[in-house]
Amino acid sequence: MAIFSKDIKTLDDLFVHQLRDIYYAEQQIVKTLPKLIEKATNPELKAGLENHLEETKGHVERVEEVFRMHGAEAKAVDCPAIDGILKEGSEVVGDVADKDVLDAAIIAAAQAVEHYEIARYGTLIAWAKELGREDEADELQATLEEEKAADEKLTEVADGRVNEAASAV
Amino acid sequence: MAIFSKDIKTLDDLFVHQLRDIYYAEQQIVKTLPKLIEKATNPELKAGLENHLEETKGHVERVEEVFRMHGAEAKAVDCPAIDGILKEGSEVVGDVADKDVLDAAIIAAAQAVEHYEIARYGTLIAWAKELGREDEADELQATLEEEKAADEKLTEVADGRVNEAASAV
Repeated sequence: MAIFSKDIKTLDDLFVHQLRDIYYAEQQIVKTLPKLIEKATNPELKAGLENHLEETKGHVERVEEVFRMHGAEAKAVDCPAIDGILKEGSEVVGDVADKDVLDAAIIAAAQAVEHYEIARYGTLIAWAKELGREDEADELQATLEEEKAADEKLTEVADGRVNEAASAV
Repeated sequence: MAIFSKDIKTLDDLFVHQLRDIYYAEQQIVKTLPKLIEKATNPELKAGLENHLEETKGHVERVEEVFRMHGAEAKAVDCPAIDGILKEGSEVVGDVADKDVLDAAIIAAAQAVEHYEIARYGTLIAWAKELGREDEADELQATLEEEKAADEKLTEVADGRVNEAASAV
């Protein structure tokens, strides 16, 4: 990223750079989600993450579509942010033995990922509009809505987890 | 973090671990914000970041208060996520010469930080409640509200930036 970022002179450059950043991030998420799905024990959590893995594959394709619309080369640039978020999630999740606590850690890791994406897509949409590309903003908005829904779904699963634990006492 | 995370057995352990993670993150943000403030050119952005720097110092103290309430040692654990988010922001911001594009990059970097914090405080509040610590949840909620307000303020500044640029054409 450091090499490419020296070439950022205009908002258009910044937009393409951020698109390449989220392109990398979405690809890393596709690689990492199966590990979280494998470890999740709550069936609702497992199903929710499986559903989001399929959505995420669609997000990769949607970013590629925006590259095409924008006339920019679809390539990924290193994104230390998502690397750090995923590394932190893997570290915590990897060392929790209790199933219920593990699920809580997985939900937290996944919500950190969702919020990173919500921030990035929000920025990309604002910049696409500023660049007069409402068409690209619409594509990105579709993904943003799915990220927000995934985050809300995770909160629901977390609440359900708590209620289940309380009723089992 | 990897060493400590082996000790996570209960939700209480996970809560304390996450608190130490955000404690580290808040401290890194206090160190990094002055660099963004120095580079920002839009007066509203500069003032907003300065205000948030003061708030962030308060968040560090509030986390310390929650450690005290919880009877846990106030110590920071490495947080690869915030390191990655701040590294990415510094890299992009460091290479942008155009002032207006630089401000846009700074806003994006700051919003990625805010969203990381919103995710983490949201999780901490849910866990505090699950642990029966409404008092700690209230403390953390106060910070969450300020993080959300800071994020909204950044969106306002971003919109103002765009309108100014449009009226200058």
